[in-house]
Amino acid sequence: MTQPLRIALAGLGTVGGGVIRLIEANGALIARRAGRPIEIVAVCARDRTKDRGVDLSRYQWEDDMTLLAGRDDVDVVVELVGGADGSALALARRTLAAGKGLVTANKAMIAHHGLELAEAAERGQAPLQFEAAVAGGIPIIKGLREGASANRIARVYGILNGTCNYILSTMEATGRDFADVLKEAQELGYAEADPTFDIEGIDAAHKLAILAAIAFGGRIDFGALEIAGITRIRAADIAQAAELGYVIRLIGLAECEAEGGGLFQRVQPCLVPLTHPLAAVDGPTNAVVVEGNFSGRLLFQGAGAGDGPTASAVVADLVDIARGQSAAPFSVPVNDLETLQPADAGRRRARAYLRFTVTDRPGVLAEITAAMRDAGVSIESLIQQGRPEEGGEVLVAMVTHEGPESGVSRALELLEGSPSITEPPLVMPLLG
Amino acid sequence: MTQPLRIALAGLGTVGGGVIRLIEANGALIARRAGRPIEIVAVCARDRTKDRGVDLSRYQWEDDMTLLAGRDDVDVVVELVGGADGSALALARRTLAAGKGLVTANKAMIAHHGLELAEAAERGQAPLQFEAAVAGGIPIIKGLREGASANRIARVYGILNGTCNYILSTMEATGRDFADVLKEAQELGYAEADPTFDIEGIDAAHKLAILAAIAFGGRIDFGALEIAGITRIRAADIAQAAELGYVIRLIGLAECEAEGGGLFQRVQPCLVPLTHPLAAVDGPTNAVVVEGNFSGRLLFQGAGAGDGPTASAVVADLVDIARGQSAAPFSVPVNDLETLQPADAGRRRARAYLRFTVTDRPGVLAEITAAMRDAGVSIESLIQQGRPEEGGEVLVAMVTHEGPESGVSRALELLEGSPSITEPPLVMPLLG
Repeated sequence: MTQPLRIALAGLGTVGGGVIRLIEANGALIARRAGRPIEIVAVCARDRTKDRGVDLSRYQWEDDMTLLAGRDDVDVVVELVGGADGSALALARRTLAAGKGLVTANKAMIAHHGLELAEAAERGQAPLQFEAAVAGGIPIIKGLREGASANRIARVYGILNGTCNYILSTMEATGRDFADVLKEAQELGYAEADPTFDIEGIDAAHKLAILAAIAFGGRIDFGALEIAGITRIRAADIAQAAELGYVIRLIGLAECEAEGGGLFQRVQPCLVPLTHPLAAVDGPTNAVVVEGNFSGRLLFQGAGAGDGPTASAVVADLVDIARGQSAAPFSVPVNDLETLQPADAGRRRARAYLRFTVTDRPGVLAEITAAMRDAGVSIESLIQQGRPEEGGEVLVAMVTHEGPESGVSRALELLEGSPSITEPPLVMPLLG
Repeated sequence: MTQPLRIALAGLGTVGGGVIRLIEANGALIARRAGRPIEIVAVCARDRTKDRGVDLSRYQWEDDMTLLAGRDDVDVVVELVGGADGSALALARRTLAAGKGLVTANKAMIAHHGLELAEAAERGQAPLQFEAAVAGGIPIIKGLREGASANRIARVYGILNGTCNYILSTMEATGRDFADVLKEAQELGYAEADPTFDIEGIDAAHKLAILAAIAFGGRIDFGALEIAGITRIRAADIAQAAELGYVIRLIGLAECEAEGGGLFQRVQPCLVPLTHPLAAVDGPTNAVVVEGNFSGRLLFQGAGAGDGPTASAVVADLVDIARGQSAAPFSVPVNDLETLQPADAGRRRARAYLRFTVTDRPGVLAEITAAMRDAGVSIESLIQQGRPEEGGEVLVAMVTHEGPESGVSRALELLEGSPSITEPPLVMPLLG
């Protein structure tokens, strides 16, 4: 057996603990597969005394995280601190500048600084891997970058946030409302105390930006993503969708128009037909669909978070590095990534679900349908004019025929400022 | 851009044509991703004059396939001839002996001669890749060998034969019987003129043997696989399963008992609960589940056959080789593969579906249930004593409580030779 791959772990939260447990449990097996052992040399976290359920005495403790990057006895730093900037980014920069490999689960950092880090990795001829940053234990980055490497990718989309999926599928199963289920998810540990990043779609957007760069060979432009979360979805929306044969899922979707065309990237709740494989994805599971021009539709599904699955992805990256098999993190060298223009979303054609919250008074329906007509939006079905809710509100929901998004936007503009409409209408496309 | 990866194609059937079309369509994209172009230099097939819908004039024609292995202008031979032995094997041996890379979609050859070829590849330090041999376009070999490399694999199982899945899901959707649907599948090109390898489970077994070797680090022992096909399944079985909340799928499953324990490998039709992701897999789609001790359940799904998907997998292997990233084909060097003893299947515990075909006369049911009792098999439900079919046959179906397979086997032994039972009982486990 040749020299071990010596690693340092920065960050000993859930995932860090999982990595230690995994390497301790499966070390011999991993050594056989990797051709050499993977050995934890040093660790670092904020609080040395905290009980993490793992024995840290076998590893050297480093108080200053950035010093991990300078250690001669470390080949790869595993960054599990989190956060787009701050100490995680400082450590990542130092590590790559020192010519050491970097493995990270940090989606925010890669979405914001991935190109800079990939360039640093190229300069230092050091591996940079981040399988765990997208969809937990699912080897989707490998699947896309290597498994689907022969294909022009038409689109990549999926369920990228387990918290949202847990909330939506629980709302669906129980008929309960968003706030209620969120609270329960927080109590069960499926949602964080501050759930903003998850429920507003930002976490899913980080992951989508990474997948899109790999799929389409484009420079990450996180600011170009359109992002909508799930906070405005009501139990009534889910019930309406069910009547139509759909479930609601938070979908991140990236699609590139024909060669040289624009890149569309959006995270938003969508109506997913029950016949689609993503409709059956419940709870904190993630699933990603890759559509290639030769492969057809490939589906990758599994646990989107948790210490075990995320550690599985982190250590798979380490095994690749130990085997000497690190591909360019974004599939091609950074200089070969193209600057892709954002697509004109208004030209995208879809059927859409629209839900209006209106005051219960005469003429409201006429006002809405007239705006639709004037904007050239054809209504397929007006599926509800519900009984008044608290405060005299009524929900009006409809599904449009297939048409450009710009039509719906125009109709909503025409309705802007209407005293009958009590909150901004909710628009969700039907996944085609 | 560095030197191209120069390949020779042996076999220009459906998949060979797909590989040519793919490289012509996506060549520029692949060159960017691989870091160098993949260039077809020479081709070879039985019939030079056949119209394959691709222009072969750009490639050198070789009449004698084995000469491809000796060409100085070829780096990798792509073997798409098929067949476990014969000219495919001769070409594979020569290619690797010459120190050239080999990419193949030939599951039969790898299942029977994979270890010999992997050893030859090691000796010649030449890459050997066969992603297309298992589950068409799905990158399951990569997913298992690299994506799940950090895990002790508990079991790997799935739908590995598109023809059988098409037949079973069509029987399910239409209520028609096996022979009728097989005939239609042959007309539609989903089944071959001689469908034996598919419908008898042999094709799925080839794929399972390959997956099991990678998952458990064991030497392939194709003879140790238990194989049952789908030819005995009747419309009535599918209807009964549906009433119980199950569909019938041909499942290849490999499972390794706790460390040092035996390896169980079997292809057979199973009852799959509607809540399981494999139950929703219809038509010629394939899907594979990998259960790792840290990753949890990973699902890989996609087209299991066809020129496009299979070509996608073949060329993905070529991109890996062009990138200099070929792992050991069975995850570890051949010498490190263990000889795993077959597990004692009789000790496996499962609920089972049993269907008897009996003559319609008094006492039959008493005879069957007495045998069950005497063998210690507990019946959960006797779900049918149907009306007589043609010839006075009656179908008796039941589901047992969970128990060891040996109990069911013992019961069937007790019933052997019974004049009331007109054909060997059909036994299918319920996938747990």
